[in-house]
Amino acid sequence: MSLLDPAADHCAPAQSIPAAVAAPAATPQESTLREGEARLWLQPAHGHEARALRVAWRLHGPAAAPVIAVLGGISADRKVADAAGQPGWWQTQTARDGALDVTRWRVLSFDWLDAASLAADAVSSTDQAQALAGVLDALDIARLHALVGASYGAMVGLAFAAQFPARLRRLIAIAGAHRAHPQAAALRAVQRGIVRFALDSGDAARGLALARQLAMIGYRSPRELARRFDAPAVLAAGRVRVGAEDWLEGAGARFVQRFDARRFLALSESIDLHAVDPAAVRVATTLIGFSTDQLVPVADLCALQRGLGAPCELHVLDSDYGHDAFLKETAALGALLRAALAPGAGHA
Amino acid sequence: MSLLDPAADHCAPAQSIPAAVAAPAATPQESTLREGEARLWLQPAHGHEARALRVAWRLHGPAAAPVIAVLGGISADRKVADAAGQPGWWQTQTARDGALDVTRWRVLSFDWLDAASLAADAVSSTDQAQALAGVLDALDIARLHALVGASYGAMVGLAFAAQFPARLRRLIAIAGAHRAHPQAAALRAVQRGIVRFALDSGDAARGLALARQLAMIGYRSPRELARRFDAPAVLAAGRVRVGAEDWLEGAGARFVQRFDARRFLALSESIDLHAVDPAAVRVATTLIGFSTDQLVPVADLCALQRGLGAPCELHVLDSDYGHDAFLKETAALGALLRAALAPGAGHA
Repeated sequence: MSLLDPAADHCAPAQSIPAAVAAPAATPQESTLREGEARLWLQPAHGHEARALRVAWRLHGPAAAPVIAVLGGISADRKVADAAGQPGWWQTQTARDGALDVTRWRVLSFDWLDAASLAADAVSSTDQAQALAGVLDALDIARLHALVGASYGAMVGLAFAAQFPARLRRLIAIAGAHRAHPQAAALRAVQRGIVRFALDSGDAARGLALARQLAMIGYRSPRELARRFDAPAVLAAGRVRVGAEDWLEGAGARFVQRFDARRFLALSESIDLHAVDPAAVRVATTLIGFSTDQLVPVADLCALQRGLGAPCELHVLDSDYGHDAFLKETAALGALLRAALAPGAGHA
Repeated sequence: MSLLDPAADHCAPAQSIPAAVAAPAATPQESTLREGEARLWLQPAHGHEARALRVAWRLHGPAAAPVIAVLGGISADRKVADAAGQPGWWQTQTARDGALDVTRWRVLSFDWLDAASLAADAVSSTDQAQALAGVLDALDIARLHALVGASYGAMVGLAFAAQFPARLRRLIAIAGAHRAHPQAAALRAVQRGIVRFALDSGDAARGLALARQLAMIGYRSPRELARRFDAPAVLAAGRVRVGAEDWLEGAGARFVQRFDARRFLALSESIDLHAVDPAAVRVATTLIGFSTDQLVPVADLCALQRGLGAPCELHVLDSDYGHDAFLKETAALGALLRAALAPGAGHA
């Protein structure tokens, strides 16, 4: 069976994969970092013509270790693990003895495309999946041991599994479903309305900061906010400040230092355009959700699990941290990741 | 016992009230509408000096019927019931055979004060309670049969009960608690940030509309939005529109036609400044909450019930409509209101 043949068996049992490919390094190995840009040709889902473009990627880990693609939220990038002392956005899981330890696994990531890089009206999760396939081609990686996607990365993972089933042994989709929940979409529509207003007003940064503040409320949970910020509001400098307001303003101010308003619009829209038929996902899948996630309710993951076109486990972690539990519940999530990544996992 | 004596028994059993005062009209009576402005002297909680001001009120109903004060959300006003064919904001309950039928009860309401009318830094729920007491004085109403407050009106009701226990037989507080929940406060802080940005940008209406869109998401529930708006997003005119977006934009556009940005800021802040010690509420109370209310979680009403300084019932209605269930669940809410308003209710 050719691993590159898209018509090949979509649900190959793990024993058909050579053990040397499926097992992580038994002991930590020296992790090398490779970095580059893949050149690829892509027909955007919402564009008029195919485009040549470059996709920036990073590959950490020992040369012989299995490859795991790791994809995060819309504000994440290829910098998933430590590089020259700069911690990655998922440092907790990619550090030594983490579930995605880059001394035992090869960890691949890439920078999201956006509508501008595609010269398209919008960027789709299927475009990102095509970009990942192009990166795999450029690196001569036939098949991923796993794709671990969280938030938008889970959506892209589902799109990748639906389009390239032969190139993925197991999908691990965290806090992401086959479509956006209508309330989460409504909250993002308001965020985009704020940013468009700000662009029209000539002060994009102030609008982007407000949109990020609103996004942060959705990323967390009422339980966490009640625990951290149950202080009386204060009246200062002629206006009221509530308990969470310093935290919100800090998050907004940091975001505008590192993110662009138009890129935010494109990637926020991409979440809401995302739609994958669960039955079209014919790759063994582990779904992970969080009890307090306001953006991806557990009920949506149940519906995805019921409809998925391959064996599918669903694990729900109870957490105060809502959607952001994927960044916060290091130990509990790490245990689930280890189990899903183990060589024996995914026997269908 | 003088009903005007604030030192009088705070929890007078209902039998001490003359039956003629406590029972609604046995058959529908001609409902008259009286309307006016009460002149009163008020020391704002967040102001520097006492102010003379006017409070606009309406009183519907037959002359001999017991008086119920009815107070709604921050965008509600004295126009609670039909007047000359113009439906009130709580038409469903105040219409013939409704729980607050103005042919059987006298229904009193008033227009909220705001920071501008007080010439203060902010307006407090205790200021609104003082205003209600002033209206009662002007109308020579010693004691209310009940105060039915929903949302902000419930907060003002709690403040009134704490300040003027002798002037209220029973408080019915719907979807409002002793303090704002920290997540709800955070969502309002972002709304205010949007409006302040818009005022600075010279386009207050666009910001107020966006703030209202965000508020609407909080007023409803994920269940309702999932039921109504689970349609794929569409790409039109170069941007994505999600299922709820027409509805949100319509709500925003209607709101700016009838509301002012600075008044919105003041009343939104007032919700977050609200803080009443439950133990200080020494009036028999009925609390009503909604299972899906994202702004006033049932857990907060449980805490209020446990701490209240008088007998207190808590009823939770299951509803798809979240916080707005007080305007939507007419039959179920009406049954609870009828029971709480019955002459025998509140025997402590």
